[in-house]
Amino acid sequence: MVGAGLVGSLLAIFLKKRGFEVEVFERNPDIREHRQVSGRSINLTLCERGLRALDIVGAGEAVRDLSVPAYGRLVHDVAGNLTFQPYGNSDEAIYSISRSGLNAYLLDLAESGYGLEVQFNEKCVGLDLSSATIEMQNRVSGHISRHKADRIIGADGAFSAIRFHLIKTYGFNYSQQYWEQGYKELTVAPGAESGWLSERNALHIWPRRQYMLIGFPNVDGSFTCSLHIPLKGDPSFQSITTEKDLTRFVQASFPDAAERFANLAEEYFINPPNYMITIKCSPWSHGDRILLIGDAVHAIYPSYGQGANAGFEDCAVLDTLIGEYGDDWHSIFLRFEEARKANTDAIADLCVEHFIELRDDVGNPAFQLRKQIERKLSRLYPDRYKDLYSMITFTCIPYAQAIETDRTQRAIRERLLKLAQKNNGIDNPELDRAMESLMREYPGLAHAAAD
Amino acid sequence: MVGAGLVGSLLAIFLKKRGFEVEVFERNPDIREHRQVSGRSINLTLCERGLRALDIVGAGEAVRDLSVPAYGRLVHDVAGNLTFQPYGNSDEAIYSISRSGLNAYLLDLAESGYGLEVQFNEKCVGLDLSSATIEMQNRVSGHISRHKADRIIGADGAFSAIRFHLIKTYGFNYSQQYWEQGYKELTVAPGAESGWLSERNALHIWPRRQYMLIGFPNVDGSFTCSLHIPLKGDPSFQSITTEKDLTRFVQASFPDAAERFANLAEEYFINPPNYMITIKCSPWSHGDRILLIGDAVHAIYPSYGQGANAGFEDCAVLDTLIGEYGDDWHSIFLRFEEARKANTDAIADLCVEHFIELRDDVGNPAFQLRKQIERKLSRLYPDRYKDLYSMITFTCIPYAQAIETDRTQRAIRERLLKLAQKNNGIDNPELDRAMESLMREYPGLAHAAAD
Repeated sequence: MVGAGLVGSLLAIFLKKRGFEVEVFERNPDIREHRQVSGRSINLTLCERGLRALDIVGAGEAVRDLSVPAYGRLVHDVAGNLTFQPYGNSDEAIYSISRSGLNAYLLDLAESGYGLEVQFNEKCVGLDLSSATIEMQNRVSGHISRHKADRIIGADGAFSAIRFHLIKTYGFNYSQQYWEQGYKELTVAPGAESGWLSERNALHIWPRRQYMLIGFPNVDGSFTCSLHIPLKGDPSFQSITTEKDLTRFVQASFPDAAERFANLAEEYFINPPNYMITIKCSPWSHGDRILLIGDAVHAIYPSYGQGANAGFEDCAVLDTLIGEYGDDWHSIFLRFEEARKANTDAIADLCVEHFIELRDDVGNPAFQLRKQIERKLSRLYPDRYKDLYSMITFTCIPYAQAIETDRTQRAIRERLLKLAQKNNGIDNPELDRAMESLMREYPGLAHAAAD
Repeated sequence: MVGAGLVGSLLAIFLKKRGFEVEVFERNPDIREHRQVSGRSINLTLCERGLRALDIVGAGEAVRDLSVPAYGRLVHDVAGNLTFQPYGNSDEAIYSISRSGLNAYLLDLAESGYGLEVQFNEKCVGLDLSSATIEMQNRVSGHISRHKADRIIGADGAFSAIRFHLIKTYGFNYSQQYWEQGYKELTVAPGAESGWLSERNALHIWPRRQYMLIGFPNVDGSFTCSLHIPLKGDPSFQSITTEKDLTRFVQASFPDAAERFANLAEEYFINPPNYMITIKCSPWSHGDRILLIGDAVHAIYPSYGQGANAGFEDCAVLDTLIGEYGDDWHSIFLRFEEARKANTDAIADLCVEHFIELRDDVGNPAFQLRKQIERKLSRLYPDRYKDLYSMITFTCIPYAQAIETDRTQRAIRERLLKLAQKNNGIDNPELDRAMESLMREYPGLAHAAAD
């Protein structure tokens, strides 16, 4: 296996649990030794799909303990007013966790709990497809080694070296698309017991149309913020080049956060912006020997908080298929792509849409009214109406099916939105009557009962 | 410059003509020495765009002499009936030519006419982007050499090595999509003076919905045919695996061609199918040092006969920009992509559509009636109505603009098609009146007068 990031470590555990002999190579140094050095502690959020996969290998509880549950988003306007938008309809939470902390935990579990050994600083420099032999170069010693395996799995991320070899094979369809925005991580130190910093069980968001700031709570009371701005134009990473530009921009755009950053200029200027990329490809396997998984086949924008969750769900699905098909790897690989690709393509497209929604619409009255309508629908028809965010985040309904269900629900909520706008709110008899009549005709989530 | 295929050789000539010092590397052996060996003489067609670019460097006439003009397509049905569909409305022709013959001519011209020297068997194995240094390995001697240049141009085709290095750079958007069909080339030897073989000034096409055969005339009286069938399914390259399968399939599908193939089984079984790929990417350049051109940035399906033409048009556009911007390469590269990308993306999409049209619709009555209507429109309104095929093939109207114009014309011809179907033909007063009235309201091609 190539890659011991989030998906690589978890998959290694799944495979070891099934009794396979697993060799794991990772191109980076051991994150447990170098975590402080890198200076970056990118955060992510876990939800039902990811946690359920972790539960299968007994990692769910420990991971929840390393996380901060966030029950909704707290929207900051320029004047510093806060609006809370709950994520779920029944106090559901997503779990904010540091990527490196989660990775370190999974590596510990792989080694101590499952007896796996991960070889770090090993970079894949060659792959012979016909014999399933990989060539690894140690980045410290320069030593080159060759490893022939029954199966090679590339869980080596959005810039996968294994995939890079497959791109050159006939019939491999592939696309990589960058977003015209990037982001940088800025830290807010643990602090005040009052004000917004005390609102720790929420993701904070400062939507400003062309750009935004998002704050993820950490267990130590700090926040890791991502500043999303365009790569070019004004404002952009290209236009903000001096400490003065930066301070002026941050103070004007996010006044209630501006004074809280621990090392604003240093963090902003030390690293290049993080880019966001969407990867789609097919086939995910080559013969019955080589398989790609996780970001290597479906890197998505972080806007829906689904990257790690989709990768973890991959691991659980693959594990189930191994259980069903035994050593018929040809079928396992084909069924795996059949089960996953339509879903990961669908979430990729949704992430692009949602990124724009987060940035442009979250602060809008119509957006908030629509949310209220969906909450009312979910409350009154808990078995028959679920909003898209809830289906994606708090269930394991396949992504494509959740999105399809949402499309059929659109007519209902847009009709109700019109009535709510006309009647100045969601609590009025006309809207109630319309809701009852619309829901009488709606077949409901029956077909989405996979959860 | 990397690549001395069609686009590489022509661009080298354009650049030398401007007074630049040009070094040209080609990974393949010299096609002039190995033409017979490869056993493949893939054909292509040149049209106005390509020929106009060739005219600029004085190559147009010679190339026309190496070609066979085809004034239309001759459609063969299963019973052997032939229907002629002229390409143009005023006896315009496209020019069928062997790829290797054209390439050999351009190499001769580059060397003898322009004093260029092409180094063959030189494969690009490395590229240092920051210093614009390429590393070439000689495929015969194994010798590795490094070359630093002011500018590196990758005209190295759909599987461009230069592009492969750019794929790894941040912000490089890229997609490669294979078609589920492939093709093999089959030769029909020069022969009979009668029957379809005597119809040499046409492209022959045997459309059979899921598959098709296309015949290109050669100057020596032979035809080069492409057999397009699916890669999988039945029939497909996977299902036709024995000489018996092949003979039965060809006899049943193309009875009037079946007996004419010179070496059917040998040619079918010796080579793997040719795949068809669409490549799109951006940016086309890296800084002001490295540029991609031709198939390297916009490989398209061969269905519209535009691959080489689009690449030659690239060369002419780049040459014009060099004339305008002098040594401001930053602007030249940006303007070049601005001028071309929307157009090459548009022709790429059109080639996908047209491939389906060729295979599925060319034999349909509605398709033929629509063609008749368009011919009548073009005859009566020569300055105001041009069908899409004519705009793409017989003018230099930018691809995107031609396609856009065609979209606005669609309503007119679909309305007339209904009347022609109702009245059993295009010659009746009701249709004439409708045509006159529709064309009175249509603004016409004024905006497409770029030609």
